[in-house]
Amino acid sequence: MPQAGDSVISIRDFGRDEILQVLAAAARMEECGHFGLLEGCVLATVFLEPSTRTRLSFASAMMKLGGQVLDFGEPEQSSFKKGESLSDAVRIVGGYCDVIALRHPWEGAARLAAQIAGVPVINAGDGANQHPTQTFLDLYTIQKVKGQVDGLTVGFVGDLKYGRTVHSLVTALSRFDCEQVFVAPPSLAMPEGLLAELQQGGVSYSQSEELAEVLPGLDILYCTRIQQERFADSLEYERVKGAYRLDRTLLRDSGARESLRIMHPLPRVDELAPDIDDTPHAVYFEQARNGVPVRQALLALVLGKV
Amino acid sequence: MPQAGDSVISIRDFGRDEILQVLAAAARMEECGHFGLLEGCVLATVFLEPSTRTRLSFASAMMKLGGQVLDFGEPEQSSFKKGESLSDAVRIVGGYCDVIALRHPWEGAARLAAQIAGVPVINAGDGANQHPTQTFLDLYTIQKVKGQVDGLTVGFVGDLKYGRTVHSLVTALSRFDCEQVFVAPPSLAMPEGLLAELQQGGVSYSQSEELAEVLPGLDILYCTRIQQERFADSLEYERVKGAYRLDRTLLRDSGARESLRIMHPLPRVDELAPDIDDTPHAVYFEQARNGVPVRQALLALVLGKV
Amino acid sequence: MPQAGDSVISIRDFGRDEILQVLAAAARMEECGHFGLLEGCVLATVFLEPSTRTRLSFASAMMKLGGQVLDFGEPEQSSFKKGESLSDAVRIVGGYCDVIALRHPWEGAARLAAQIAGVPVINAGDGANQHPTQTFLDLYTIQKVKGQVDGLTVGFVGDLKYGRTVHSLVTALSRFDCEQVFVAPPSLAMPEGLLAELQQGGVSYSQSEELAEVLPGLDILYCTRIQQERFADSLEYERVKGAYRLDRTLLRDSGARESLRIMHPLPRVDELAPDIDDTPHAVYFEQARNGVPVRQALLALVLGKV
Repeated sequence: MPQAGDSVISIRDFGRDEILQVLAAAARMEECGHFGLLEGCVLATVFLEPSTRTRLSFASAMMKLGGQVLDFGEPEQSSFKKGESLSDAVRIVGGYCDVIALRHPWEGAARLAAQIAGVPVINAGDGANQHPTQTFLDLYTIQKVKGQVDGLTVGFVGDLKYGRTVHSLVTALSRFDCEQVFVAPPSLAMPEGLLAELQQGGVSYSQSEELAEVLPGLDILYCTRIQQERFADSLEYERVKGAYRLDRTLLRDSGARESLRIMHPLPRVDELAPDIDDTPHAVYFEQARNGVPVRQALLALVLGKV
Repeated sequence: MPQAGDSVISIRDFGRDEILQVLAAAARMEECGHFGLLEGCVLATVFLEPSTRTRLSFASAMMKLGGQVLDFGEPEQSSFKKGESLSDAVRIVGGYCDVIALRHPWEGAARLAAQIAGVPVINAGDGANQHPTQTFLDLYTIQKVKGQVDGLTVGFVGDLKYGRTVHSLVTALSRFDCEQVFVAPPSLAMPEGLLAELQQGGVSYSQSEELAEVLPGLDILYCTRIQQERFADSLEYERVKGAYRLDRTLLRDSGARESLRIMHPLPRVDELAPDIDDTPHAVYFEQARNGVPVRQALLALVLGKV
Repeated sequence: MPQAGDSVISIRDFGRDEILQVLAAAARMEECGHFGLLEGCVLATVFLEPSTRTRLSFASAMMKLGGQVLDFGEPEQSSFKKGESLSDAVRIVGGYCDVIALRHPWEGAARLAAQIAGVPVINAGDGANQHPTQTFLDLYTIQKVKGQVDGLTVGFVGDLKYGRTVHSLVTALSRFDCEQVFVAPPSLAMPEGLLAELQQGGVSYSQSEELAEVLPGLDILYCTRIQQERFADSLEYERVKGAYRLDRTLLRDSGARESLRIMHPLPRVDELAPDIDDTPHAVYFEQARNGVPVRQALLALVLGKV
């Protein structure tokens, strides 16, 4: 579990017990409110790529604990335009706040920042690499809706090749006793390297191209957007997009369990039909809300307040 | 009067007594300060059209009561760019805050948002439709400078055809015993539908094309900008603009009352000469400041804190 | 020393004793924290030119004292786009806050704003003119690292012709018993008018084109960026840039004192090599951090809270 002064860079730095401790801290945040816990503390949100949801969720977490939020603003308006290096910018922002939430387009940026900021850095996404607070909130959601993480069959559908969110969650789930099922077209299948890692770790997984086929066996389905820019051929994009669209009819016809819960990191476009929103299957809005207690727990932990 | 959990969507939803209750609550805010009343509460400002004045006024109102403000940021930087629907965005933001102030270019957006946000929504302008907090602050200003709303003759000048602010205030004043006078060129006259409504409601009104002619009879003059983009012909624009420009000379020459008070929703350009600013007629800066207590009252009401 | 209600426009308005009082107030802020001192107060940051560092530093100062911050936002998104005048905008923002920090591209904008805002205005840079809070933090840094301002030899290198920061600090130091040394190519030398002023005031100074030559005699070296846009000829720019680049080798070879301290308003680009960062010479990151207690002191003073 992160201690006062620690940074939160990658879910890979967390073992099973540490993950469970963070989830327990988040649950305490959600139960008790804890307003005033971070009074006098300032979070700087430095988002060099736009990410409304993550930025607002961090800010809300801080404010709901009585802390304040300093937003770095749009990168085009900032000192980066004057040629300033990331390390200079981070060192200076570190002098103005108690903790930094950093979103950066380059892999490894968060770890570099953590070495020089002088305050804890929480990685809010560094390129295609890591987004640990998303993974914690995904795990928190699974635990909340299913009671525990162990013993579940968790499916992933959509863009499994490029999806940072998917890769991080798959890695985290490999610390638990879960069956993992990957559903994607061959062009967007899970990276070989990650599959090899699962095999070495003795993690049980399977792959499929057909969503309907695997739906009946799942406890959790984690959906992701398929982005047009991944396809050279727009016809191929349309075909794939249609094949992995989930709606109420498919849920019924495929024989999905009543207890199946559907997650999505959002925003969604077409891959998840709005007719699912009102079913008990849909937990993606609750999942988004869970970002607040999870980030409250991480902020309070690295600031040494719990 | 709005209750805890209510949204504030349109001035049309408010009767005369409810309006007076809101104005009374605003007066109490202005007198007492009430710092700390909204401590621990978070307002999300979601402005999908720029509106510096309204956004800052909402934020100031919240901060002055001890609450905090989460700004959604520029729409071009947000998840809308990824194709997210308004309803998904509102539902998620609703999970991060206690109340939303929404500005949106589409008519009806605020009412839609209120149905799904899970928290109260205050309409900060939806297209050409409604902007109720502006109307409340206009009424509050009239009451403050004149002692009461009943018994006044209120003139409107400028773009009466497209002016959302004017339409809302006209509607609200129709709940009071006021004489209304509309001054505009034929191409920017009050919409027929709204005039028909006043007639049906037995509201006393008159129309004119000459500002000088009506000035002597007015207690309040509400000015608005005439926007060049409304005119196909730029010569016609110049002619109209000049004809409806108010300055100290026109006030004197037309025989306007000493007690005439001039309002404007601001920003102004040329329609209101700066030489009026230092006269007792000018109340438009005070009007802008009145946005703070009025929005404090509405925030506190829908959050159930008064 | 500024009193409750005063604005802070130019370092020229401050005598030696007043400057020392502000520095003493900043030192008390840094020692005691003073959280809660500005509770219930709102600072509006109105930055019509981007300046990440200064804006964040003001915001952090306010938040760390328990106050809140209202950001005006990007100028392109604001009411200025609708043709609003600076004076109208400032008057309205003044109605929403207790103090304004204003950055504006025009010389004199801050003094104009102070006359009409109705609340204190702190100049956060007005064109090529003044940036007094930067000067206070520079002086605070000198006092902190050297114990006092009197008796020092302070060098300036880089763009001395256009550098607002340099001009303000030179003026402030002329109230103290300092020797000043100016190092620049002829095309970027100190303005004649300012040199004449120093002479009239009996201030001891010298000029040089060679950095290595003057380094051994300095207690403080204040570096600034040389901007390519100042040069018509890009070869000349490259030559000058290279000649005034400071690195560890130059420090050693020139015989600079162990006790030399190097300052820079940041952001830096190439003029200051990163290999200096880890030496005791480098105080520029500390200098940036010093912006917080200095701005806390100024905010608290003009708000009448100390």
